[in-house]
Amino acid sequence: MKPLISIEAAAKALFSSLTPSDTESVSLADAFGRVLRESLTADRPIPPFDRVMMDGIAIDSSEFHGIGTEFLIVGTQAAGSPPLEKTQAQTCFEVMTGAILPHGCDCVIPVEEISITQDSVILSPDAVIEAGHYIHSIGSDSAEGSVLLKANTRLGPAEIAIAASVGKIQLDVSKLPRITLLTSGDEVIPPSQTPQNFEIRSSHPSFLIHLIESNTLGTCQHVHLPDDRSITSEAIHTALQNSDILIFTGGISKGKFDYIAPELSARIGEPLFHGVKQRPGKPFACWHDAATSTSVFALPGNPVSVCATATRYLLPALIQHLTLSSPIQHVKLAHPFHWKPPIPGFAPCSINNDQTATIHQMQNSGDYLCLAGCHGFVYFSQPQIEYAVDTELPFYPFLIK
Amino acid sequence: MKPLISIEAAAKALFSSLTPSDTESVSLADAFGRVLRESLTADRPIPPFDRVMMDGIAIDSSEFHGIGTEFLIVGTQAAGSPPLEKTQAQTCFEVMTGAILPHGCDCVIPVEEISITQDSVILSPDAVIEAGHYIHSIGSDSAEGSVLLKANTRLGPAEIAIAASVGKIQLDVSKLPRITLLTSGDEVIPPSQTPQNFEIRSSHPSFLIHLIESNTLGTCQHVHLPDDRSITSEAIHTALQNSDILIFTGGISKGKFDYIAPELSARIGEPLFHGVKQRPGKPFACWHDAATSTSVFALPGNPVSVCATATRYLLPALIQHLTLSSPIQHVKLAHPFHWKPPIPGFAPCSINNDQTATIHQMQNSGDYLCLAGCHGFVYFSQPQIEYAVDTELPFYPFLIK
Repeated sequence: MKPLISIEAAAKALFSSLTPSDTESVSLADAFGRVLRESLTADRPIPPFDRVMMDGIAIDSSEFHGIGTEFLIVGTQAAGSPPLEKTQAQTCFEVMTGAILPHGCDCVIPVEEISITQDSVILSPDAVIEAGHYIHSIGSDSAEGSVLLKANTRLGPAEIAIAASVGKIQLDVSKLPRITLLTSGDEVIPPSQTPQNFEIRSSHPSFLIHLIESNTLGTCQHVHLPDDRSITSEAIHTALQNSDILIFTGGISKGKFDYIAPELSARIGEPLFHGVKQRPGKPFACWHDAATSTSVFALPGNPVSVCATATRYLLPALIQHLTLSSPIQHVKLAHPFHWKPPIPGFAPCSINNDQTATIHQMQNSGDYLCLAGCHGFVYFSQPQIEYAVDTELPFYPFLIK
Repeated sequence: MKPLISIEAAAKALFSSLTPSDTESVSLADAFGRVLRESLTADRPIPPFDRVMMDGIAIDSSEFHGIGTEFLIVGTQAAGSPPLEKTQAQTCFEVMTGAILPHGCDCVIPVEEISITQDSVILSPDAVIEAGHYIHSIGSDSAEGSVLLKANTRLGPAEIAIAASVGKIQLDVSKLPRITLLTSGDEVIPPSQTPQNFEIRSSHPSFLIHLIESNTLGTCQHVHLPDDRSITSEAIHTALQNSDILIFTGGISKGKFDYIAPELSARIGEPLFHGVKQRPGKPFACWHDAATSTSVFALPGNPVSVCATATRYLLPALIQHLTLSSPIQHVKLAHPFHWKPPIPGFAPCSINNDQTATIHQMQNSGDYLCLAGCHGFVYFSQPQIEYAVDTELPFYPFLIK
């Protein structure tokens, strides 16, 4: 293990090693949550026609000559029908919300502001009669060809709706990295099995795979490694061939059976760093294979260490790899908090409904129960300090926006 | 249409009509994002054994007699192996992180704090020698049978990991409502088709289905209705039979072809309300069929109205139906903002990295481009008011925590 480096130096080494992901074309139906890699433009003016905004009648406002002016209804302009044509003076059309404005009309009067006797319409004294009224005019939101979504935008519900509205049914997006998660430890058994009194059930995959896949940041497969050097070596060989990113949990400290670090170094050279001056997660290590652009994250084995290092380093690295701009968030402390460790570090927290953070007290990095109801980690950069209520802290969420 | 009611009265009528969803049992692999309906307890003490927290050696601390005391290594306690037994004085075991503490030992000394000569260990002068050191002792996080997750909790990554760790491979969760989304309008064509100059492409399903399903709040199917009374009537009949929740978009104003409201009222009685004093989304209506507990949301047809009413009313209703406790969030305005309409309402906003809200200016409720990059809506309760920077406003997010 090299000497411990600072959190800032670890982040710098990691983030400067990353390369942007390739792009691929996906259908609109598969694009949710993905990162757009092209700019998306309007194929028509928006709105694409003079759009009626209220149910009512459409008139030529110049034909209004004061209270009592009558208009004869000569047709109905339904939404989805070609535009009607006004050919006679003092006539009007019934119009429906979403319809194209009939030719020869320039003003819509809502149904609440008219009275109809047989086919004749009289306007209410408080009706507004002016050109353009209740008309969402062609191109008033955006001109044809204008940029609606920039590249490197995440496609959430609203962005997918915008893509649908301009008929963009294939989109260039960031290719998701193929991630192999390699957990380790002879004491770890599947959740479905009954442990002996020196065994524990596997839980890291449950956390990590959901963290990554629910944020649409990669596709994961999972392998569990026994504490066996040749199996570990073979698994690393296979994973390096099949994956863009490797994630290990456990087996990277100074234990007699910690084969992962030496096997990785033998295959792809020295780590970017191994050991960070932080709590929890001190044994955290990263490698980068320049030949294949494969990134390797070796997270410590304790549950809170896994969660903290995955949230602080892995998620932001995936976000950067996918070319999504996502500056660090900040939240204010809901209460004073004494960061006791002699080094900086991360504490699990929940975000309250006023967006302040409440710290979840943890006993040690093995105390995974403190993660219940947690929304992410805050960063305490100064050791052994009493942080005041309302102190603004960097926040690393489980769920990206 | 009944007289307009206030936003508060609409919310009260809607939320008091809702019933809690049924429960169902799902496997751990399918439980992510779901709402837990049982409390989840520890099947063993946590940790389940005296767990070694560092790679090093385990000794009996009472056998330490000052600087220079030597211990003979008599075995290796690997993680995942049954506990060894110390039988002779002044002996120790090599121990690995995650292993059970060997019987007869009470203290772990990390590898950094010892020196080994052949099989003999001398402790560093600054090693801490006390009973319990670097031991995560059995039951210290939680006793067997204690509650780890309460009912009505959302199962995020950390909660799924906790369930895995206690071997809970089947969980009782809220059943997701079967939702039928019925869009309407003859002017609306599928995104894959080329519109004529009086047509627009369908975008509401893209927004609504992703909004609901990415939050794991329901399963949606979509039907598009032409402006035809008998087809509308038949579709309502079928949807009421097949669904727990119906969502309409458009066709509920005063247009000549707005058949949805009369057809619904004919089948399931008068609406809870129809028309809310808000902007956007004034024509919004809700029905509740007491006989079948079916809720019906009739959203207006303009895109920003759809998004605002879905975010303010539909999502919170689904959250309540699924029995998830989720009090209203608040955010502070990043800038002064003048709410110009003569009635209260909702504005789309993005949440900045300091958790403040920046309002997206919209031209009118048809201006869906203002939704790009938006994270939800804030509520302006006072009409025609200049809101100061830092004013705290209720916030309705697209993405629930």
